[in-house]
Parts: sequence; structure tokens; C-alpha cells
Amino acid sequence: MEQQRKLAVIVGAGPGLGCALGRRFSKAEMNVAMAARDVARLESLTMECAAIGHGAKAYSCDAGNEKSVEEFFSQVRAEFGEPDVVIYNAGAFVPRGLLETTAEEFERCWRVGCMGGFLVGRAAARSMLERIGRGGRGGTIVFTGATASLRGSAGFHNLAVGKFGLRALAQSMARELQPKGIHVAHVILDGRIRPSSSIEHSAEASDDMLDPSAIAEAYFQLHCQLRSAWTQEMDLRPWVEKF
Amino acid sequence: MEQQRKLAVIVGAGPGLGCALGRRFSKAEMNVAMAARDVARLESLTMECAAIGHGAKAYSCDAGNEKSVEEFFSQVRAEFGEPDVVIYNAGAFVPRGLLETTAEEFERCWRVGCMGGFLVGRAAARSMLERIGRGGRGGTIVFTGATASLRGSAGFHNLAVGKFGLRALAQSMARELQPKGIHVAHVILDGRIRPSSSIEHSAEASDDMLDPSAIAEAYFQLHCQLRSAWTQEMDLRPWVEKF
Amino acid sequence: MEQQRKLAVIVGAGPGLGCALGRRFSKAEMNVAMAARDVARLESLTMECAAIGHGAKAYSCDAGNEKSVEEFFSQVRAEFGEPDVVIYNAGAFVPRGLLETTAEEFERCWRVGCMGGFLVGRAAARSMLERIGRGGRGGTIVFTGATASLRGSAGFHNLAVGKFGLRALAQSMARELQPKGIHVAHVILDGRIRPSSSIEHSAEASDDMLDPSAIAEAYFQLHCQLRSAWTQEMDLRPWVEKF
Amino acid sequence: MEQQRKLAVIVGAGPGLGCALGRRFSKAEMNVAMAARDVARLESLTMECAAIGHGAKAYSCDAGNEKSVEEFFSQVRAEFGEPDVVIYNAGAFVPRGLLETTAEEFERCWRVGCMGGFLVGRAAARSMLERIGRGGRGGTIVFTGATASLRGSAGFHNLAVGKFGLRALAQSMARELQPKGIHVAHVILDGRIRPSSSIEHSAEASDDMLDPSAIAEAYFQLHCQLRSAWTQEMDLRPWVEKF
Repeated sequence: MEQQRKLAVIVGAGPGLGCALGRRFSKAEMNVAMAARDVARLESLTMECAAIGHGAKAYSCDAGNEKSVEEFFSQVRAEFGEPDVVIYNAGAFVPRGLLETTAEEFERCWRVGCMGGFLVGRAAARSMLERIGRGGRGGTIVFTGATASLRGSAGFHNLAVGKFGLRALAQSMARELQPKGIHVAHVILDGRIRPSSSIEHSAEASDDMLDPSAIAEAYFQLHCQLRSAWTQEMDLRPWVEKF
Repeated sequence: MEQQRKLAVIVGAGPGLGCALGRRFSKAEMNVAMAARDVARLESLTMECAAIGHGAKAYSCDAGNEKSVEEFFSQVRAEFGEPDVVIYNAGAFVPRGLLETTAEEFERCWRVGCMGGFLVGRAAARSMLERIGRGGRGGTIVFTGATASLRGSAGFHNLAVGKFGLRALAQSMARELQPKGIHVAHVILDGRIRPSSSIEHSAEASDDMLDPSAIAEAYFQLHCQLRSAWTQEMDLRPWVEKF
Repeated sequence: MEQQRKLAVIVGAGPGLGCALGRRFSKAEMNVAMAARDVARLESLTMECAAIGHGAKAYSCDAGNEKSVEEFFSQVRAEFGEPDVVIYNAGAFVPRGLLETTAEEFERCWRVGCMGGFLVGRAAARSMLERIGRGGRGGTIVFTGATASLRGSAGFHNLAVGKFGLRALAQSMARELQPKGIHVAHVILDGRIRPSSSIEHSAEASDDMLDPSAIAEAYFQLHCQLRSAWTQEMDLRPWVEKF
Repeated sequence: MEQQRKLAVIVGAGPGLGCALGRRFSKAEMNVAMAARDVARLESLTMECAAIGHGAKAYSCDAGNEKSVEEFFSQVRAEFGEPDVVIYNAGAFVPRGLLETTAEEFERCWRVGCMGGFLVGRAAARSMLERIGRGGRGGTIVFTGATASLRGSAGFHNLAVGKFGLRALAQSMARELQPKGIHVAHVILDGRIRPSSSIEHSAEASDDMLDPSAIAEAYFQLHCQLRSAWTQEMDLRPWVEKF
């Protein structure tokens, strides 16, 4: 148990952005707890983070499932204490024409894209508010949005319904929780995230896609903002992106 | 079976706006099919509409349930043919602090507020596209939004998540379906709707709330728009409303 | 002087939308006063409107010039009384790269696109508030927006700066004036307006562009809205328009 | 002449945010050129910045006047070279009812709030594009927005028209210039900025207002963003601010 060190919790930690977030918060001397459906994918990352010298652990968690989220948070808490930063980064989506969309698929996309944000956001807020209640520090909750957070396009209802909903949640939470000391931010990623496989060979040429580590830096800066000037929403896009 | 007469389908037909919509489309010589959870509430209305001289029928339908929506649409079709106007007007909501919100409640509000819009919108589009495929006319689908469609407020996440999602759906459907001949509109009602009980005595004094029949007129005008100039989104609010 | 008949004032009355608005309000038994820089272009229209049987007159007015606008409104008032509807429809724009844009051009586009809206809107409000002060009826002010009201695109700063500004004005005026009985609406035209030359021959084929008479119908419906349910903003676009 | 050192240009440099920006970029080892109408107000600041060890100079400039802006930029260039960061921070505003607003006042507010943004933005872009054309680095242009950038309130048309217009300009410039290597950002300040007089005594208690140095930090972080993930728009507000 390392109660003193600050803790970052990352839900929906894939090989791209999730890993970059893990690295960034590790470098800031924080413990890192990462949750994904498939925990095996996170092994090498947690070893890498742990090698930096702090606590890092991967957990299996189904973000759209209340029991799974509650268990994850209580495990994390037992091991690392209350979180300082919680990032909701999960999503699921396949483009689909309206008539071809099944009710199951529509619901599943929303469950991962938005319901999970509620479950994670509520658990994060509960934990942070308890610490604030004891006279402790607040925290930061960040939700990952997309172009589809602002615009429903043909064939994108499965994504947009969840992303619009997540933005509604982020705004509602910000208005309820910020005056209590919890910073709630929504980041709109507009553009493709560079796949991790391409990171090694071609770092220079590929800044026409969102670099996961550049995104992670922006998330980290959000956490560093003084409460005198908090950002509720910002976008991030590559310089060459049409928008 | 009256195949020739045009048909308006109203889902989420309460005693206020639902009834006013029924009356307005009846007066336009259209058949009216109205769906509500509690069909008993619609009896007097359907009698009133039928007295105007056209087909009017109330159906029991749970908008958030796929089977129920599919059955409703096939009944309507058997009785009245394909719809010309489909209005999604259902919603459910109680204000609630984040920590007091249960997962069941969060999900239920979304299911009525947004999932039902998908189920009804898909059934409506399928039916209208079939008629268009036979060389027939298109149709109009209208979704009812609210202030919470554009803004998540403290304690309003249950409402805003569904309403943001419904707006995302309306935009996605408009971009997919309008070029195929189906008009998809989203109407933002900003302000309280005048309760039906107050309609009788005080028509004059009460125009500081949204009058259901004034809203119904706007919906009817949307249906009358030529496809050369379709409205995707409009707001409606009382003249004295702060916004 | 026909004081009893209602009056529509249309500023920025070109051969397309301006004329269609003139026709629509004439058909509603209203007097019509139309202002354009080049009044000669309006002659045939005013004759056509007058033939319908009511007052119709064209005025020369430079919308971006305070003196010109004030003179126009006092002439109109002397001849027709206070206006019931005032529509601001003027605009000027050439796409231009930033470095190629002169200060004169930037300013001129704003002056026609936005400053004129202020001058006309203020004159309209003053006139309508006087009538309301005497116990008379309110009125409707409509501003014509564009895609560029919501989005600044590369090369479109000259247009977008004025159109964003006009929308800001419309919102500010709505919030100040609606509780006093004046309806202020902003209509976003998204798509090309069909040139008047093509109206004659090909009415049917050309509904892939905004039909001026369909737009005019929407403006008229705005004026007809009861104050219990006023629209502040709506869009209009052809069914096939990408957006 | 210190050509090597990076240069920040701040237009509209008052005692609050302007000074904080000057300090922040000075601390980052950059030269700082500050422009204000009343240059005397900047003397102590430039001395303070110069004491940090780099170039700092105050210039008199009327941001809404083309000749004045052009002269300012050519002086700056002669002394410090091409700018790396240009911040447009000027504004002017008094709340006013519509009928009480004079044309002169309406125009003057826009001239300072928006026209100056165009003149400064164009000069900045020209200078930065020249350096890029020589194979040099790009740059960052930041415009300061406000709550009134997104919403026109009663009595706020003088402010909102300029701020909406400035946002239109920022979006248009971003879409034209970002693919050429110039980052264009728009920051929405929602809340009152803490007056500089209160900085000394009560640093701790006063984080219910926007702290100028916290804002300045956010602007500096925007300049530090890699082009793989640029922010076009972000908001900043105190934790207790209602929104």
C-alpha cells in the first residue's frame, strides 16, 4: 500500500492512448491503475510503468457492468487509496446503416460508450468526495470524446448517441461537482489516433495523426490546472486535419 | 382499412402534447395512431379525434422495448397503412444528485428517452422507405427535445444523457435519410408545457407556458415543409422564458 | 395611408429571396415595404405585389449607413405606419485568403452583414415598442443567417465574422425584447438559394436548391407563431444537401 | 536585436492578464513585446520582465487601426524578429439596452473586439508564413474569448457581436493556416478575472475568480502543444463559477 503517492485510474486502457496515459502519469511520480476488458494486453505496459519505479497494476473490468466497475474501484482503493485522476476512455463502435442496426448493437455501444462513463464517474466522484470530506484534496475526472460528440453523421448513430450522452454526463457532473472541488473535463479527439505499431519506426512523419503521448500530455496538463482556471472542454486534432 | 388517408403516428402520447398533436393531425384530415404505456389515458382523445371524422386509435406500447414497438408498428400498418408522420415524444425523468442515481434509473431514463427513439425511428424509416421503394411518397419523423438536449445541468444527467443521445440520433438519421426522401426534424422545447388541466379556464393568462396546441401547430408545419427547404432543428419557447 | 393593414418590411430585397418574401406577405393581405441599394431592381416586383391589391413600395436604402436606415424607416412609417414584420436579409461577400483580405473589404462585409442588422433591428424595435406602449400589438424581427453563422471556414472569414455577429445580435435582442412582446428569430439557410432565372422553366427538377418561396413560407410561419411558443432559431436546407 | 530568442507578442496588454502573459513568456526565456493604447501603464511590467533577463518592450498601438497595427508589427520585427506567439487580448464594452446603443458605440466595440483581431491576426500570419517559407518554424496565434463568444445576452450585444465575430475569425484562420503550420486557438474565459490589485494580499482566498497567472499558464501550454495534437478551442473558468 502506497497511500501517499497520487493515483491515476485509467479505464479503457488499450495499447494506444491507454498506454500513453499510463506512461505520462507514471512519469509524474503517480501510481497507475489501468482497467481493460482484456487485461493480458496490459502486462507489458504495467511492467514498463513499474520499472519507472512506482505502483502500476492492470485490472480486468467490464466498464458497462455495474458490479465489475464497483469491484474494480474497491480493489484499487484497497491497494492504492483514493484516486486523484480518473480517465474514462472506453468505447465501442462499428459504422452501420440505420436499418441494419440491431437493438442489441445500439444498446451495447451506448453501454460501453456512455453507461460505463456514468458508472466510473460515479465511483470516482464518491471516492474523491470522501477524501474531500476528510479535509483532503479533490481530484480530476476526464472523459474522452470524439468528433461524434458534437455531430451525428450518417451511419454513426451507434457512436454519436453514446458520445453525445457522455458529453451530457460530463457537463452535468462538472456543474454538480466542480463547486465541491472535483474538476470534470471533456476532451474532444478529432482525428485518428496513431496506431501504436507505427510509433517505433516513423515518429517524425506521422504527426498527421493524433500522437497518443501528445494527447496524454494534454490530459496531464488538465490535471495540473489550478482550480482558479479549470477547463471543462477542449479539442485536440492534428495540424493537417480537415474540420 | 383506409389506405388513402395520410397517417400520423404519435408515440409517447400523454394528456398534454400527445393529445394536442392528435387533434392537430386529425384536423388535417389524417388518421391518427397514438401509443402510450397506459392506453386508458387516451380513450377520450381517440373518441374526440374519431368524432372529427377520421380513423383514430390508441395502442399500448412500451417505447423502450423492441418487441413492443415492432408489434405496435405492424398493428398500425395493418390497420392504417404506412405512416406519413411519426413523432417520438416519450420521456422519463426525475432530477437526482450523481451519488444518489442508481444504475437502473440511469438506464431506464435513457431507454425511454433515447433507445425508444431509435426503435421507433427505425420502424418508421423502414416503413417509409418501403413506400418510397414502391414509388410512393416519403414522410416526416420528428423527435421532441428539451433544454437538456443542449446542456447538461447539475442533477439533470438522467434527462440530458437521453436527450443529447436523441439529438445525436436525429442528426444521424437526417444525414442518412433525407437524401432518400425522409424528413427528420428535432424540436427543442425550452420551457414548461402548460398542463392540460389549466387549458379550459385560463387560456389567455397562461401563455407564459408552452401551449400544447401551439407546439402541435409547429410540428404540423414541419410536416408541410417542401423538401426544397427542410428544417432539421428548431426551438420553441414561451415569450417570457429566460434563456 | 393604410394604417389598418399589417406591414412587412424587407431589407436587402434582391431578385430571389427578397421578392419571394414580398409576394408571400402580400398574399397574406399585408402591405410590403422593400429596401435595396438598387431600387430599380425592385420595380417589377412592387408592381406585381401592388397588383395583388395592397400597398407595396420599393425604397433605396444602404443598410450599413445609419442615416439611410433612419430615413427609410421614417418614410415607411409615414406611408404605412409601424411594421409588424421586419426582415433583415442583406449580405455581401467574396471568398478570400487571409493575407489577400484588405481591411476595407473585411470592414465592408461586416457593415452590410451585421452593422446593418443592428441599425435595422434597432429601428424596428423602436417602432414596435412604441406601438406596444400605446397598447398595440407586438411584432416579429427575422434575421437571415447562413452556414457561416455556425462555422468559420478557410477563406470565409469575411462572411463568417458578419454572420456570427448577426447571430449574436439576434440572440441578444431576443433575450431583451421577447419579454416585451417582440419575437426575434434567426434563420440559418444552409445551401444555395435557387436563382430566380431558373424558377420559370424547371420548378420540379430544381428542389435540390433552396426555393425562395419555400423559405418565404417558413418566414411567414414564424410571424404566425403564437407567443406561447416562439422559435428563436431554425435551419432550412434542401433535402439532398450534405451537412 | 536578439534574433535567436523566441518572441511573444501580446496585444491588449492591460494590468491583469496582459501582465501575467508577459511574465509567463518571459520566464520561458522568450522576448516579449507588449502593445496597449496607453503604453505608460506597461512601464513597470516591462522593467520587471527585462529584469528576468530577456528583451521586453512596450509599444503604443491602437488595435482597431490598420496603420497603427502595421507600424507596431514592423517595429517589433525590426527589434526582435518574427513572432512565435501572438496573443490578441483587446476588448471594449459597456452593457447597454438596444435602444440606448449608439451606432458609434456598436461600431467601436466591434472595432476593438474583432477588427483588431483581424488586423493583428493577419500581420501575425504574414510574418510567421514568411519564416515558414524560409524553412523556419511556425507559430501560435491565440484569441481571447468570453462567455459572450457563445451566447448573446440581453444588454450584451456590443460585446457579443465582437466576440462571436472573433471566434468566427479564429475558426476561419485555424482552418486556413493550421495545415500551413500555424496553430490558431481560441480561449473562452468564463468568469471574472481577478483584478491585479487583489493579487498581493489575498492570493489564497481569491481563487473564486480567474487568476491571470493561471490563464497565462494555459496560454503557454497551448504554445507548447506539438502539432500532432493542437487545441482549437478551450474554456477556462473558476471552480465555483455557475455555468
